[in-house]
Amino acid sequence: MLTALRQEVLEANLELFRRGLAIYTFGNASGISRDKGLVVIKPSGAPYESMKAEDLVATDLEGRVVEGGLRPSSDLPTHLALYRAFPALGGVAHTHSACATAWAQAGREIPCLGTTHADCFRGPIPVTAPLSPEEIQTDYELNTGRAIVKRFAGLDPMEMRAALVAGHGPFCWGASASQAAHNAVVLEEIARIAYWTVTLDPAAAPLHSTLLDKHFFRKHGRGAYYGQR
Amino acid sequence: MLTALRQEVLEANLELFRRGLAIYTFGNASGISRDKGLVVIKPSGAPYESMKAEDLVATDLEGRVVEGGLRPSSDLPTHLALYRAFPALGGVAHTHSACATAWAQAGREIPCLGTTHADCFRGPIPVTAPLSPEEIQTDYELNTGRAIVKRFAGLDPMEMRAALVAGHGPFCWGASASQAAHNAVVLEEIARIAYWTVTLDPAAAPLHSTLLDKHFFRKHGRGAYYGQR
Amino acid sequence: MLTALRQEVLEANLELFRRGLAIYTFGNASGISRDKGLVVIKPSGAPYESMKAEDLVATDLEGRVVEGGLRPSSDLPTHLALYRAFPALGGVAHTHSACATAWAQAGREIPCLGTTHADCFRGPIPVTAPLSPEEIQTDYELNTGRAIVKRFAGLDPMEMRAALVAGHGPFCWGASASQAAHNAVVLEEIARIAYWTVTLDPAAAPLHSTLLDKHFFRKHGRGAYYGQR
Amino acid sequence: MLTALRQEVLEANLELFRRGLAIYTFGNASGISRDKGLVVIKPSGAPYESMKAEDLVATDLEGRVVEGGLRPSSDLPTHLALYRAFPALGGVAHTHSACATAWAQAGREIPCLGTTHADCFRGPIPVTAPLSPEEIQTDYELNTGRAIVKRFAGLDPMEMRAALVAGHGPFCWGASASQAAHNAVVLEEIARIAYWTVTLDPAAAPLHSTLLDKHFFRKHGRGAYYGQR
Repeated sequence: MLTALRQEVLEANLELFRRGLAIYTFGNASGISRDKGLVVIKPSGAPYESMKAEDLVATDLEGRVVEGGLRPSSDLPTHLALYRAFPALGGVAHTHSACATAWAQAGREIPCLGTTHADCFRGPIPVTAPLSPEEIQTDYELNTGRAIVKRFAGLDPMEMRAALVAGHGPFCWGASASQAAHNAVVLEEIARIAYWTVTLDPAAAPLHSTLLDKHFFRKHGRGAYYGQR
Repeated sequence: MLTALRQEVLEANLELFRRGLAIYTFGNASGISRDKGLVVIKPSGAPYESMKAEDLVATDLEGRVVEGGLRPSSDLPTHLALYRAFPALGGVAHTHSACATAWAQAGREIPCLGTTHADCFRGPIPVTAPLSPEEIQTDYELNTGRAIVKRFAGLDPMEMRAALVAGHGPFCWGASASQAAHNAVVLEEIARIAYWTVTLDPAAAPLHSTLLDKHFFRKHGRGAYYGQR
Repeated sequence: MLTALRQEVLEANLELFRRGLAIYTFGNASGISRDKGLVVIKPSGAPYESMKAEDLVATDLEGRVVEGGLRPSSDLPTHLALYRAFPALGGVAHTHSACATAWAQAGREIPCLGTTHADCFRGPIPVTAPLSPEEIQTDYELNTGRAIVKRFAGLDPMEMRAALVAGHGPFCWGASASQAAHNAVVLEEIARIAYWTVTLDPAAAPLHSTLLDKHFFRKHGRGAYYGQR
Repeated sequence: MLTALRQEVLEANLELFRRGLAIYTFGNASGISRDKGLVVIKPSGAPYESMKAEDLVATDLEGRVVEGGLRPSSDLPTHLALYRAFPALGGVAHTHSACATAWAQAGREIPCLGTTHADCFRGPIPVTAPLSPEEIQTDYELNTGRAIVKRFAGLDPMEMRAALVAGHGPFCWGASASQAAHNAVVLEEIARIAYWTVTLDPAAAPLHSTLLDKHFFRKHGRGAYYGQR
């Protein structure tokens, strides 16, 4: 069951590893079958080098394991909160990729300083509010997901497919697990470029909104003309 | 047709990828046959890993596709504007390479701080003026090329073979596609060294013009004595 | 004798090399058999590329060589001081990994700025006091170990498995040589993320203690729920 | 003739390339046979990928080619000035390695901030004075060597085996070509660590001279006890 989804989620996890976004057992990616209401995710604490499609864990949207002999990623409740809140999501990727994590640790949203950013994300990458001690002590991972959802009030999760969890790191998503991993890779790239930009010029101005939208909509939506038909 | 040019343009594109200047489908390189008045360029949104010479798209200098079943890079009009304005150009390479892009995002020209820079570029790397909203909304890519050409009033494009488009990233060129890619690689290297230099010493002085010219003309022009005869 | 320990210590040394924490002959890892009271360590000045398990040197806890034809690492007395003072240690890894070493050179402890750090280390990474000229001139390597032990008064070495020796670099440890090497790799990663964080925001706040402990104890101790049973 | 020296100089050049200190045709290494009074050096403008031992050029100490069909590196007169002034030198390596070059461009000597530095270089890495326009226009490469030699008045070139040429980059040397290349690699490493250190703490204090000498003489001279007998 879920053979194609397992394969795609495996590839998304391996992509995080190959691109240097995750060392050892850091990070995790998942994908969802909306038809079946089932999520496939990396097992908890598993190294990437030896991971196989059959090691992945399938759960329902409440986190009950329906397939697989291993424990799911401890971040599963965060993924599920995102899938429940944002129906357009097909995949989620979480990493501690170094530069995006630095922005999250600094509690600063990544401003949209150039077209590389605008090609993928429509606006600054939002940062969540800190969790309260109570939210940390009980249902921590679920509350992490809730903090992202709360931060996205008024934002379209398909135009802004990433969030920085304050003091933690990025969660990215997309229409599929592979797109979620792709967005995690691009986020790390733009986080690095933005770091260099603001250390070159602390007053660097964000991209004009006309240019931001021009680039975002060159690649996304009905008027897109980037890529092949 | 254009077999040798296609091969060279393919290699130039792959060079951008191998050297880490482009991830996924970012970036593009082109080359021109001045005899035939035809340009060969990367197809839009194509990944590098599987790119073949026959996937490249040939157009005339007005951008009409004359060969190839794919859409050309969406940045084609920028390349064409450069080919039309600068007759000495044989190739153009555009990337979002991380450090050069940071300078472009900061809107700062890269000062010529050392001989590594002077060996390849005669002076600071110029930054274009921002486009107006109108220039962004209509013929954006063409206007990007025009902004470069405008910025080069009074500059010799064969002595300064790179420009930073403000808020976007570098365009580089040369007598051939392979030289354009080579210059893009060197630009990223000097952008990184310059970043470290100005963060070590914000008041770092540009190279004396005598030393700048000594190094540039060791490698270029009639008096060059670097390399083999 | 000590075949399994030799193999594990070899792998720990190679891990430092493979992950880019050590160039040429820099760095060293050791492991201990508490039963036999014997330590296995990298030979002094040996390159990693050609290292074999039988090249490693076995000594007792006073540093007397009991097996192996080569000289032990010159840092052996530092390792031994740690093994004698901290009975829970099974392995030690010392590197000059670039970013952790920069913090050591700056004499700054690495603040716990995020969950990546808290997952592995419970609190800021401590820095030792400088050695006196006398401590440097006589029994330098032993005194380096003593400085670490002194700095750890009141700290649990299994909750804080790393120290920065001021002006020198990191020493890491764990329940085994492989865990020591693992912690050295994670330390370098969090040192890099912390560097970017404090240069983005010099006033970046440390993680709230509730979140710090939540992450540390997700992975360590009785209540741990990260990983597989 | 010079077969062994050619092989060692080839390896030294390739080491610069493999370690990322030189891209394309940047950089060059040479070695000298003091018996024969002959120097072997990289050919000018040659890429590393295809370089063979027989491509290297042999010259006498006045720069007259005695063996080899290619032009020697344009930096040959700098190498020769060093060989003539410093009789202990067996090899010289010149690179534009990114971080050491940034220090040279900033015109700042690299302070000795830690034991990684002290293990290889006894004190801060000196920077040459700028050349006058006349020195640039005539015999530029020879004058570059003279500027290094002048800067070394009162310094022992076997205790400080590197110099930063202001606005240019590092020259390193040693008892052999392979040691020169090794020192170039270590210089780049300590340049990077020092960069991070001074950007973490602009007032970071240099290593105490007792500790500096302890580390330098652990590895060099009669009392050395690092490595194997």
